[in-house]
Amino acid sequence: MARIHDPISALDPFFNPGSIAVIGASENYAKPGGRPVSALMSKGYKGKIYPVNPSHEYIHGLKCYPSILDVPGEVDLAVVSVVADKVHRTLEECAAKGVKAAVVFSSGFAEVGDEGLEKQRRLSELAGKTGLRILGPNCLGLVNTTNGVMASFAFIVDLPAVEDKVLGFVTQSGAFGAIIYASSLHKGVGFNYFISVGNEADLEFADFLDYMVHDEKTKLMGGYLEGARDGGKLRRVAEEAIEKGKPILILKVGRTSAGSRAAASHTGSLAGSDRIYDAFFKQTGIIRIDDYTELIAFTPLFQAGKLPRGRNTAIIATSGGAGVTMADLCESLGLNVIPLREETRDRMDRVLPPFASSRNPVDLTAAFMTRPEIVVDCLKAVCGDPEVDIVICNVNFPYTAPGDPIIREFIDTCMSTDKFVLFTPFVFPGTDMDPAALEIKRAGVPTNPDTMSAIKAVCNLARYSETLKRKKNPEYRVQPPKRPKPDLGGMLKPGEALSESAAKAVLAKYGIPVTREALAASADEAVNQARKIGYPVVLKVDSPDIAHKTEAGALKLNLKDDGEVREAFDEIMANARAYKPEARINGVSVQEMLPEGTEVIIGVTRDPVFGPVIMFGLGGIFVEVLKDVSFRVAPVSPGDARDMVREIKGYAMLEGVRGKPPADVEAIADVILKVSDLVTDYRDSIEELDINPLVVYPAGVKAADALLVVRR
Amino acid sequence: MARIHDPISALDPFFNPGSIAVIGASENYAKPGGRPVSALMSKGYKGKIYPVNPSHEYIHGLKCYPSILDVPGEVDLAVVSVVADKVHRTLEECAAKGVKAAVVFSSGFAEVGDEGLEKQRRLSELAGKTGLRILGPNCLGLVNTTNGVMASFAFIVDLPAVEDKVLGFVTQSGAFGAIIYASSLHKGVGFNYFISVGNEADLEFADFLDYMVHDEKTKLMGGYLEGARDGGKLRRVAEEAIEKGKPILILKVGRTSAGSRAAASHTGSLAGSDRIYDAFFKQTGIIRIDDYTELIAFTPLFQAGKLPRGRNTAIIATSGGAGVTMADLCESLGLNVIPLREETRDRMDRVLPPFASSRNPVDLTAAFMTRPEIVVDCLKAVCGDPEVDIVICNVNFPYTAPGDPIIREFIDTCMSTDKFVLFTPFVFPGTDMDPAALEIKRAGVPTNPDTMSAIKAVCNLARYSETLKRKKNPEYRVQPPKRPKPDLGGMLKPGEALSESAAKAVLAKYGIPVTREALAASADEAVNQARKIGYPVVLKVDSPDIAHKTEAGALKLNLKDDGEVREAFDEIMANARAYKPEARINGVSVQEMLPEGTEVIIGVTRDPVFGPVIMFGLGGIFVEVLKDVSFRVAPVSPGDARDMVREIKGYAMLEGVRGKPPADVEAIADVILKVSDLVTDYRDSIEELDINPLVVYPAGVKAADALLVVRR
Repeated sequence: MARIHDPISALDPFFNPGSIAVIGASENYAKPGGRPVSALMSKGYKGKIYPVNPSHEYIHGLKCYPSILDVPGEVDLAVVSVVADKVHRTLEECAAKGVKAAVVFSSGFAEVGDEGLEKQRRLSELAGKTGLRILGPNCLGLVNTTNGVMASFAFIVDLPAVEDKVLGFVTQSGAFGAIIYASSLHKGVGFNYFISVGNEADLEFADFLDYMVHDEKTKLMGGYLEGARDGGKLRRVAEEAIEKGKPILILKVGRTSAGSRAAASHTGSLAGSDRIYDAFFKQTGIIRIDDYTELIAFTPLFQAGKLPRGRNTAIIATSGGAGVTMADLCESLGLNVIPLREETRDRMDRVLPPFASSRNPVDLTAAFMTRPEIVVDCLKAVCGDPEVDIVICNVNFPYTAPGDPIIREFIDTCMSTDKFVLFTPFVFPGTDMDPAALEIKRAGVPTNPDTMSAIKAVCNLARYSETLKRKKNPEYRVQPPKRPKPDLGGMLKPGEALSESAAKAVLAKYGIPVTREALAASADEAVNQARKIGYPVVLKVDSPDIAHKTEAGALKLNLKDDGEVREAFDEIMANARAYKPEARINGVSVQEMLPEGTEVIIGVTRDPVFGPVIMFGLGGIFVEVLKDVSFRVAPVSPGDARDMVREIKGYAMLEGVRGKPPADVEAIADVILKVSDLVTDYRDSIEELDINPLVVYPAGVKAADALLVVRR
Repeated sequence: MARIHDPISALDPFFNPGSIAVIGASENYAKPGGRPVSALMSKGYKGKIYPVNPSHEYIHGLKCYPSILDVPGEVDLAVVSVVADKVHRTLEECAAKGVKAAVVFSSGFAEVGDEGLEKQRRLSELAGKTGLRILGPNCLGLVNTTNGVMASFAFIVDLPAVEDKVLGFVTQSGAFGAIIYASSLHKGVGFNYFISVGNEADLEFADFLDYMVHDEKTKLMGGYLEGARDGGKLRRVAEEAIEKGKPILILKVGRTSAGSRAAASHTGSLAGSDRIYDAFFKQTGIIRIDDYTELIAFTPLFQAGKLPRGRNTAIIATSGGAGVTMADLCESLGLNVIPLREETRDRMDRVLPPFASSRNPVDLTAAFMTRPEIVVDCLKAVCGDPEVDIVICNVNFPYTAPGDPIIREFIDTCMSTDKFVLFTPFVFPGTDMDPAALEIKRAGVPTNPDTMSAIKAVCNLARYSETLKRKKNPEYRVQPPKRPKPDLGGMLKPGEALSESAAKAVLAKYGIPVTREALAASADEAVNQARKIGYPVVLKVDSPDIAHKTEAGALKLNLKDDGEVREAFDEIMANARAYKPEARINGVSVQEMLPEGTEVIIGVTRDPVFGPVIMFGLGGIFVEVLKDVSFRVAPVSPGDARDMVREIKGYAMLEGVRGKPPADVEAIADVILKVSDLVTDYRDSIEELDINPLVVYPAGVKAADALLVVRR
């Protein structure tokens, strides 16, 4: 039964239930079932609370019911804390009672092996059949700090609240997620929602992101992810988040655990799943973070409401050493510490002492202490430089009282400029910000005394700003296929590796240029075909069973006349039969001999999470030795196809080196888009595809060889 | 006048003066001259203190002298805080008085332009003439926290002391250095010495490192470096620090500021100075850090007294999420999170609950809370695994009292194993370590609750441990040249770019294999030479003025007989004359035509700090497009020469790809060593050298072309 996509009404019973039953409720705070009732009460949940437990009459002064079926009123949300064996039965009762949503703390499911897996499968089935939505099992549950819904047994339910919560957080690790929650809170950054998804028997990570994307109370989202269930769903959610201007920051772990997979094609062997996640995040605009502290630093800067227009950065520091250290960090993260304009430097030189420096990073020296006006003068000068997008102000006002006009002027300058100004005051270790700095922070200037974290956050903001711009560009929308879905008839036989000519025939149906070629069953036929195609020609065995033609001696290049063709035909047939006597041989393919060009590879592999993934790389050693390739999840937009070509390290090879003319990058991107159409049309049929090499010319491209494996 | 190298006696008057004069002393604490006297008194300096200032009779109760010459006793150290114009005169008086060392706070020297530069030059001259050693000018001075020598006006003289100070710190940025000092102290890590070197008119950064390497109170050194004065001196100091087992950690800034230099050779254009620093640090075993927090985290772990034997790491965590996040960080830093042995896992599985995991990272789950013995059992199991070198224990004992036998057992296990065990307890944000964790820390177990910083520090320790092993290997000692210094007679004419044949003749003198070749002045002579060398041959114009022979049409390959040689000779001469009518043409070089091999480049460029620097890379696109090259400062050891070859990304190309046999890496390393001998022998003569290409075969190498530019 397909559900209509309405994430809010589907998941609202979790976030805004009118009533909550706690099944397996207890007064013992050491037990998971002992926490929600008291937490719901102490955090001011306004709805009805129904403890359920056959062994108690009252819990925390509330009447307790023997079973959910005995509860008198309607129940929106059930919190289930019973042993694994009783969970299915309990959820059946919930469904019978008309409960809409259930949080299942109980462990003993997929995490303990086959028996638990079967139990979990039955929960998934129950959810599908009854419409009861399940969070968990084996999770810490869910917390909504805006309305006191404490459907969790994590220690976080005991933590105090903070104001202005707009950050929603979803995690695949309960315990680590709770640590992130606590650390964030300690830095003054609170979550509005915290969801620990556990084993994802029904609802998954992306479903909760989806809710938050559509939820008005959430302005940005964080997540801890070990692996997505449904890459397509996560992609749709990410696209909608971009539409709504809500950043998603994900700490995706397992960068290094992806083992290499055995695969016939280059593409298959190069696609470690973490590289595909990287490509996916880039493609969808999800901000990948390496450390949760990046999320904590990003949030208040994003809430300040201004995005950097670009990456050009000016630094104002009170010490040369601090300035150059910041400049190094900026550059290593991809911010450009640009030379400032002559006028900008002149304006600063007029107020700076002679031993200070107006070069970027600007070094005010200790003069700022006694003459705070030079801080403001230099900030104004830098904000007036049209090439600057970001200003990093590592300054402070140690001897200036809050309320002093100079502080007001500093604030006004920060707030009125179109630059993104980061205020990162020096704070003596172990102390708080000084009163003037606190005033600046309270006025809404993006402030963080931890300079290194703050710069990382600014860089993430700049990346997000670029993503928004890119996604507004129609070039980055996936286009409908340029032709009606070609009928590939019986060409894609399940489980088959297609012969080269069959694979090229499939490509040709999609308008991808392939070598002129024809199959010949005899030497005479080969000569006839060679004359039609025009000399010189190439002869290759055509067999689904011989992948390595050179090794088999079944490939002859640059044949210049009838005699050479005749001789090559006989030799190839003999070599092929000797190489693999049981091979099915369709004949010998006669092909035009391509002039020299730049060789590239375009390939496709199937990822268990993301489906067909397209790879691009330069041929030969670039792929084999340097693994210099780019990936995108299909379908791709024209912009992404071009980015794939440009982002490899060896791109300069295509721009023309050593006197070669530039290669036709547009034609490469066009083939990537056609391959994207092919694998989207025949998503369930294509296991692997390699166009290797695709020969690229100053104008145009041609596929010289191809490999296509059909799914079983 | 050459000084005998005795860093202790040369600099001891700075660190351990028997008496100190403060020239320009004041009672006004806001003035630089106002701080040292009171700081010396309050920090318990035991020697004599002589304030000098003609306008005072007493300062802080001490008799004040009109000039240094009026001081009655001997003065070891003078602290000079007078205006720039008076500094030279004051130092002359100091020298006359027999003062041994002077710290000059005063600014107004090189940092303010040409006039100041001249003043500074005169100070350098004075130091050289009189033997008075100078720290500064324009510096914050020097602090010795072990004996109260507060020869500084930085705020750090007011900070409280910590015990067990063994970390010496030298900085090229005063203000930023002081921040590092304060931050470090806040984390409980104190410096024994703090030296702000200022403008380095006399003594430089490396001199103070040198002192600390030879000083018994210092066990490790940190530094903030913008640029070294004398690379050779820093290299010698680094080598001695390795000998003595004292790590040097340097925050070198300016990673990105090095502009590309205009140079005729590939080597010259690829050598950005920061890449050379990187190579230099690798070569000398200096640990380069990106953030001063790395120094702070490293110090206590190093002081614990154990080094990791290798990089194989096991992680024990109490949450799967935390474990995998740590594993990602470890792998990204170069630690190997290895699969544990079957027996190791079995031992753990016997005590762990079924939902826990004995896979590395080991996930104890929440079971550790109530059963702390499983922490110890798992630690013992992992310590018993012979392949593990490092154990990262992200555990804690929330419900265990200090003194509990389980804590004792945990400590004993950590202390008695030969593994490096890092204890990194979880600490609730904003709180302190729990009592059991504090007990573990106090017992001497390397402890740091900031897991991410601690792991970085462990990685730096592992790198240091490898460096010590490497440096003990005689292969990593620079060998004396294999042959007596060849006499290059008049071959190296100042300012000349040598012709190819002249450059190759120089290489041949050092035993570097070059193509058989001979110069021909006429077509007949070319034919004669070609017959002697053997067909096929190559003809090239030989001219110091034509660098790009292909472009000039002055290079003909694969000439097979007399006729082809005759024709090529005439064509080359005509083309060369047309290309550059004013070029000096020595004739045409007739060379053996080399069979195909792998092309590499070995080059030399001069660095203003480090002198001759050797570069290695694969030929063609690897250098031009990918900039995939390695550097070492000359002279190099055999081990470094091999590392240069192995560390490039394209090394696999030399191991044999696509059916090619492996290339002769030893022969490449041998050429690197011979080039190292050449540029060491003729250090002052060689400006640039490129052997491009050096053709490498399965056995042997041959230089096919060479460029050598002689210094002016």
